Amino acid sequence: MQDRARATRRSLLEAAACLFAQQGYAGTSVNDISARSGRTSGSIYFHYASKEGIALAVVHDGFATWPSLVTRYEDQSVPPLERLIALSHEIARALAEDSLTRAGARLWAERHAINVQLPDPFVLWTTAATRLLAQAHAGGQLAAGVRPAPTARTLVRAFFGFCTLTEALDGPQAVNGRLSDWWQLVLPSLQGGPRSGQAPARRAVLVRPSGTSPSEHKPLRR
Amino acid sequence: MQDRARATRRSLLEAAACLFAQQGYAGTSVNDISARSGRTSGSIYFHYASKEGIALAVVHDGFATWPSLVTRYEDQSVPPLERLIALSHEIARALAEDSLTRAGARLWAERHAINVQLPDPFVLWTTAATRLLAQAHAGGQLAAGVRPAPTARTLVRAFFGFCTLTEALDGPQAVNGRLSDWWQLVLPSLQGGPRSGQAPARRAVLVRPSGTSPSEHKPLRR
Repeated sequence: MQDRARATRRSLLEAAACLFAQQGYAGTSVNDISARSGRTSGSIYFHYASKEGIALAVVHDGFATWPSLVTRYEDQSVPPLERLIALSHEIARALAEDSLTRAGARLWAERHAINVQLPDPFVLWTTAATRLLAQAHAGGQLAAGVRPAPTARTLVRAFFGFCTLTEALDGPQAVNGRLSDWWQLVLPSLQGGPRSGQAPARRAVLVRPSGTSPSEHKPLRR
Repeated sequence: MQDRARATRRSLLEAAACLFAQQGYAGTSVNDISARSGRTSGSIYFHYASKEGIALAVVHDGFATWPSLVTRYEDQSVPPLERLIALSHEIARALAEDSLTRAGARLWAERHAINVQLPDPFVLWTTAATRLLAQAHAGGQLAAGVRPAPTARTLVRAFFGFCTLTEALDGPQAVNGRLSDWWQLVLPSLQGGPRSGQAPARRAVLVRPSGTSPSEHKPLRR
């Protein structure tokens, strides 16, 4: 794709993501996207056949940020459960602040009203969580009987529900602060009781892993 | 209210709940509710000023089933965490099978597209969960540091997210079967490690408490 076409698509998707996140799919028209992006409707229809096509592109654009995001949580010197917690903080922050992530979550919630099959966004999250839990399992850091794949599936669904409901009920800025409640609810189950020579389970909840404070994160957006 | 008016309202709300649950709010017209209930549109507008009014009445009707539901989980001879687990199975079943509960969940998900303030359905669930956790706490059955109110808030949000996403991704019939995954993720955290003289934490997950098999439940619907 030529640079100019790429820049046009980028500005269209950024405008569409902001609008979908704020106003929802039904509340956003192609004219709104045109006005916000400064591109003509003709240009929008040239790049995307329909509003459904734009929604799908926004979702795929969000998915495309994942490989670089997940790569940042591969530092083997940090215990895998700590990396999982740090990743959850990054996702919660993106759900509160990043237009593309917010648009993806809202489009998913409104999927019945969108005449196109939106891909399941949880596959990527679940794959990343399974990988980290498998590393924790291999390192003897999971409680007996905790199986990485089904646990990751359950964890991701419950976590997403927790984040979206906390946002809906308490506001977007509340989510990150509530994550310690979330981890207090599940981390002891993942780790099992404290064993000799190990720090208590709760410690990893309350102490943010080094190198993962918000200011040290690259933004989720490419 | 006269019996006849009450019967009309009941048939309207049952029809509306089925349609909202199946087709969503935007996909359901007052004419659809008229056709399904066998009542005229005039009758509908006589009882409810608008489609928003019907949606609100469906949500309130769902809320009204709660007191009798929760009363069934007050048997002090059953440990409170077992009652919490049994209640979760009943809620999951209602989310899969009961039109009123399904309509309430779908209307909540679509609330941005409904021009009326729908009440937060999680207050009732959280109150019930807080009460059961407080009983468990008083009986020394909670792990140290587990505070009933914030834990119930977190539990309810994550549980609802888990149920709705599992339904969306795996189908309504899958939810009840996946609840053991859910409780394996959170019950050990609630109970703490097994102590001498106590059964292992996992046991309560896998064994359904006596008297709570589906066939022994009264239906959630009044």
